[in-house]
This record gives sequence, structure tokens and C-alpha cells, in this order.
Amino acid sequence: MKSLVVAGVMSGTSADGVDVAICRVSPALRAGGTPRIKLLGHLGLAYPKTLRAAVLGAMDAEAISVAELARLNWRLGELYAEAVARAQEKFGVTVQLVGCHGQTIYHQGASEKYLGRALRVTWQTGEAAVIAERLRVPVVSDFRPGDLAAGGQGAPLVPMLDYCMFRSAKVSRVLLNLGGIGNLTAIPAKADANGLMAFDTGPGNMVIDTCMKRLYEREFDRGGAVARTGTVLRDVVEKILEETYFSALPPKSCGREQFGETFVSRFVAMCRKAGGREGRDKDVVATATALTAASIAQAYRRFVLGHVGQAAPLSRVEFVVAGGGTKNACLMRMLGAELEPMGVKVRLIEELGVPAQAKEAIAFALLAWLSWSGLPGNVPAATGAPRAVVLGKITHG
Amino acid sequence: MKSLVVAGVMSGTSADGVDVAICRVSPALRAGGTPRIKLLGHLGLAYPKTLRAAVLGAMDAEAISVAELARLNWRLGELYAEAVARAQEKFGVTVQLVGCHGQTIYHQGASEKYLGRALRVTWQTGEAAVIAERLRVPVVSDFRPGDLAAGGQGAPLVPMLDYCMFRSAKVSRVLLNLGGIGNLTAIPAKADANGLMAFDTGPGNMVIDTCMKRLYEREFDRGGAVARTGTVLRDVVEKILEETYFSALPPKSCGREQFGETFVSRFVAMCRKAGGREGRDKDVVATATALTAASIAQAYRRFVLGHVGQAAPLSRVEFVVAGGGTKNACLMRMLGAELEPMGVKVRLIEELGVPAQAKEAIAFALLAWLSWSGLPGNVPAATGAPRAVVLGKITHG
Repeated sequence: MKSLVVAGVMSGTSADGVDVAICRVSPALRAGGTPRIKLLGHLGLAYPKTLRAAVLGAMDAEAISVAELARLNWRLGELYAEAVARAQEKFGVTVQLVGCHGQTIYHQGASEKYLGRALRVTWQTGEAAVIAERLRVPVVSDFRPGDLAAGGQGAPLVPMLDYCMFRSAKVSRVLLNLGGIGNLTAIPAKADANGLMAFDTGPGNMVIDTCMKRLYEREFDRGGAVARTGTVLRDVVEKILEETYFSALPPKSCGREQFGETFVSRFVAMCRKAGGREGRDKDVVATATALTAASIAQAYRRFVLGHVGQAAPLSRVEFVVAGGGTKNACLMRMLGAELEPMGVKVRLIEELGVPAQAKEAIAFALLAWLSWSGLPGNVPAATGAPRAVVLGKITHG
Repeated sequence: MKSLVVAGVMSGTSADGVDVAICRVSPALRAGGTPRIKLLGHLGLAYPKTLRAAVLGAMDAEAISVAELARLNWRLGELYAEAVARAQEKFGVTVQLVGCHGQTIYHQGASEKYLGRALRVTWQTGEAAVIAERLRVPVVSDFRPGDLAAGGQGAPLVPMLDYCMFRSAKVSRVLLNLGGIGNLTAIPAKADANGLMAFDTGPGNMVIDTCMKRLYEREFDRGGAVARTGTVLRDVVEKILEETYFSALPPKSCGREQFGETFVSRFVAMCRKAGGREGRDKDVVATATALTAASIAQAYRRFVLGHVGQAAPLSRVEFVVAGGGTKNACLMRMLGAELEPMGVKVRLIEELGVPAQAKEAIAFALLAWLSWSGLPGNVPAATGAPRAVVLGKITHG
């Protein structure tokens, strides 16, 4: 185990681009401690339009050619390598190891029968051999299959970073990431890794973005401007919060399968039916935003509050929010309105020194360092795996 | 570097099943030497029928779901793990490392433009994380992308084994593997790894098998019984030997893209047209068999003979044949008739102590050991790569 400059490379389910976080990761100062992570620089790059279209076309595709998927895997490898090269140049550092999450194009956390076996499967694409060749450094990729094969959900994997960066002796912290999906890690004050709780709360930006695309032909609701002018259809929010995913006990994970196009079709229809004045488009977006906030608050109330309350007074709970969703002022306001009555302080992750957009990329820098050092990276309490496992596949550079 | 019990796991383009070779691989006895490989046991298992159908359905598929491919990847991982477990039990050994080739479902050695980049790509499926989890040993997988990304063809990879096992101070050896594709490694007497020459000669069993399937609804021509009774249409053989692939200079590799269904359609039509008595089915199979033998002999004459002739007298050239095609007596007889006039001795690989069916699996045991030891596994003279690279991806067990 030694101190290394590691690039974490993340592209999330929203498929809008890639984040590179260059970090120095160093061994723990003492036995029982956690590795130290210092962010040296973060670079976000949008996918070129045609590549984004190809990625979206591959996700959960019903009918796609094997040639297309093979080429997309390689093409993403090239893009990730270029992104790391640009980050190296920008921040004037030399990367020694890369941790690349890849682009998820399929994730099936629930067991289904296939050719005589009950299987749960996951798939991240983006060829590590291309990255290793272009940069001539080792690459760790494919972090999720190891946890899934061991019996976990393969997600969430950010909790290890949350634990290493945000554990506190005095306050309990709830880390919330608002990506396509909302995921939450609760770290009670003084907890060790086994005391963590982590799960996907439900939609992050996914339902809002999909509604925006359908109704406004826009990628997202910039600043929450549309939601702010709409009226929340409370009945719809409450009805949906009664559905299975929200009441299922953690650990649990979700994705486009639960909250993608199919869900949004149903959701929009419910809004149209419930809405006065013919269920206006902006009411649908406002309701999607409110649903997102309320699903997080409900998850906190039902599953987290009791857990963190044992470690420190509830007045010492901080909600630390990261991810693209933090830029949606309406969503953040609704979230505050839901959580503050429970005594929770809502903070942006930037206040703790981490750019929100960089967080997941930093996590994969840490996870790569752990795998390279032969150390486990999953948090069983978060993924549901029966044990901690060394994640990923190592490609020599 | 230490001596390890390694399981090599191979499933070839014919997609009929999996071969497991359990080997002891030990470091070279002296600097400049080659690792030592001892075969402890070999087990061949046929794919279950439904799985074989799924594999064939995935190869080069024009329209397939991402879910199907994700599940197939996982399902093959389970099968490979079970095959290794059965081999361990059968031979009473404990495997310490697995090298798994996976099932090739796409290979594009020629550069094509995709989303703004000229790419050559390859894809082997069969999830290593599943194998590592089931067996709790490290797994090396995905051997081809590293060579391809470095500028090689990603194939052939067996030459490293040929070199380690069959290099001789006295005789020049030409190793021929008759799988779906025929591939050849020439090792001049006393050569070092840079003196090797290796390439795919063209069809191995692929054209014969495809003809048998179309014309007789059988998987292959058992013992060459059909070919033996047919008449070879010489004009067709000679005409096809003039085509591009056969005259292209090595290194070169081929697959279903060159000699799959499309080729066979054309080939059968040529036979029908050329054949007296309406081009009988058995004449088509005899001609396919003769084409296979003649393409190998022509490749030897054009590309190999001059190369090995410099190292030792041509009377000291051994042709060592392996692969399923060795069971086709008619093919072996035709091959002998083509080669022996050039002074070449044709021997079966079994005579050198290696079961033909085990050879490729042994190769991936060796390659896994090399990667695990941080050593390169490709032979640049064989793949065309500009340099030797450490192949594969390592998954911790």
C-alpha cells in the first residue's frame, strides 16, 4: 500500500458526460483508520452529442447489434482516456492509476431465471484496455459485478467514500447524492463501516428530466424554473409514495427499470387525470420535483432517523447533498421544507470542501486505490452483500 | 513469480462447449528460459443445448437485447465456474488461479469508423467476477483487448504456448490448430520469441461444419465419412484460393466474418455450378475439406517455408496438428498429401504429449500465469502488435 495519484472516472445514468477527479490517495495513518483522499482537481466533460445518443440508445436496448455495442465499449474507452489525459494536463499532475466506473447500460438487481439459473446481473461498458494502453497506467474497472456476484446489489458503492471522508465523532451525517437516482448514506456519529446504512431512495433527477424532455423537449429543468411556477399535485405524490419500491426495506437499489420511461408514462397520465385545468405541463414538473423531495424525506423518516438517532441527538444530524440535483433550487427548497421540521440541517457538499459534481468520480479513485492495494471496497451494510470483497478488474498499463 | 496450479478455460468459435485444462505453471529455471507447463488434467464439457443456441444467437447478432447479452455474460460465468469445479474434483487438485478466454461474440480486426474514431474491436463474454466468487480464486479474463488496443490483431494468442512448449534446438516446428479457424505458429529451430511467425490460415472446421449443417443437418462430418465418398471440385478450390484473405501477408486473423454463413452460401453456389451430376451434396463437403487442406498447404508454401528453411534443413520440419479437425481422417489425409511432398512430417500433437482438445485451454492457463506474474503474453510477431503487453484483466477471488 502506497500513496498514489489516482484518477476516478465516472459517467452516471443520466449519460450526459464524464467526470474525472484526480486525487492523491494515501494509506491510513494508523491501524483501523481510513485511507486519506485529497482532491487535486476535477474536470467535467459533456459527451459529444452523437456519442450521448449512442449511449442512450444502448441503455436497456431491446434490439441492438453486437457490433454497435462492441464499438461503443471501445469508443467510450477512448473518450475516458482522453478525459483523463486532459485532466492531467489541466492540473499538471501525472496519474499513476485509473479507476473507471464505465457507463451502465443494464442493471438488474432482482433475480430472474435465465437458461436454468436464477441470475442478477449488471453491465458497465467502456473498455479498460484502451484506457490502459493510451495512458500506460493500470486501470481498475467493472466495480459492480464483484459485489453483485457475492450476493450484494452491486450498488451503492459511494458509501465507502462517504465513510472515509465524512465520518465524524460528533455529528451523524446523511450523505445524499442527487444523480439520475437519489442515493443516501447514513453515517451515525462514531460509526465504523458496519454501522453504515445506504440505499437508493428512488428518483434523483431522472423523473424530472424525463418529464422535461417529453413535455418541453429540454434536457432538464434549469434551476427548477419550471417546477417553481407549477402547482404540486399532492394526491399524485402521496399515491406514488405508497408504491412498493418506497416501502421496501433497505438495502435496495433502483434505476431506469423502476423510474425510467415506463414509470414516467404512468406518472404523467396520473398528473393529467389529477390536475385541475387539464393537468398543465408545469404542474407535472412541479409534481415530479415534489415527489423526488418527498421520497427522500419519507425514506429518512422511515429508515434512517431511528438508526442515526441512537448515536447522537437528532439535532446533530447533517444532510449533506451532492450531485447535479443540487443545482435545482426548487428541488433543494422542497427538500429543506420536508427535512428541516425533523431537526435536520441541509448542507451542500461544497461546504465540506468537495465539489458536488466530483463526488462519484472521487469515489472511484478511492475504490481503484483499494482494489489495487488488495483491499475490499464495498460496504456490505450498503449493498447487502454478505461480506466485503475486493472489487473490480485490474488491467495492467 | 511462483509455481501455481492454474485452470485454463477455453470456448472456441464453434461454440460447442468448454475445455478446462488444469496445469502446473512454474517459472523458468534460468534467466532467458521459458515458464514450464505441466498438464495435470483436461476436461471437455459440451454446452447445454439451450445455452449453445443462446451463444450462437449472440454471435455477430444484428438485433439482440442488452438484457439478453448481460444475462448470457453472467450465465457463461456460472458455467465456466462449474466446469472448473468439476475438473478440480475429477483430478483431485486445488486450482489457485483461473485464466478464462470467454466466448467471442464479436471480433473486428479491420479498422472501421465509429462516432468519429477509427476502431478495431473485440469482445469475449463470460463474467470473471462470477468465476472468482464461486471458486474464491483470482481470475484473469479478457486477454484479447490489450493486444488489440496496443495495435495488434488480438489474435492468435496460442503462439506463446507453442513457443514455451515446442521450441526445439534441432527441428523447426509448425503448430497447426484446426478449430473453427485454422491457425498456425512457425517456430524455427533455436528461435527466440521474436523469430516466431503466426497467423490464421483460413477455415479450420468452420466451412466443413457449416456445409454439413446446411446439407445434412448434422453438426460436423464425423471422421470425414461424407468427404471421403465425395469428389473434390478442384476448380472451386483453386478459384477460392485466389481470393484476398489467402494472399494477404501475415500476420492476419479471420473468423465468421470471412468464413461464416455468407461465405458458405457463395461456396455452395460455386460447387453447385461447377459440379458434374448437379453438384452433389457430398461433393460440396469433399470440396470444403480439400479447400481447408489446400489453404493450409498454400499458406505454408508461400509464407512459412522460406522462414523456417533458414533455421534448419527443410527435412527437419515437423507439422504438429491439434484441434477438433484432427478427428476428421479425410482432412488429415488430404493435409498429409499436400504437405509431405514438401518434405514435411505431419504429427499429431498427442505424440508430443498434449491432448489436442486441451491445447487452447492450456494456452490460457499459461497466459493467466504470465499476467498474474506481470509478464507479457502476446507474441508481437504473431499478433502484429508493436510491443509485448501484459494481457487481460485480473479479478481478485
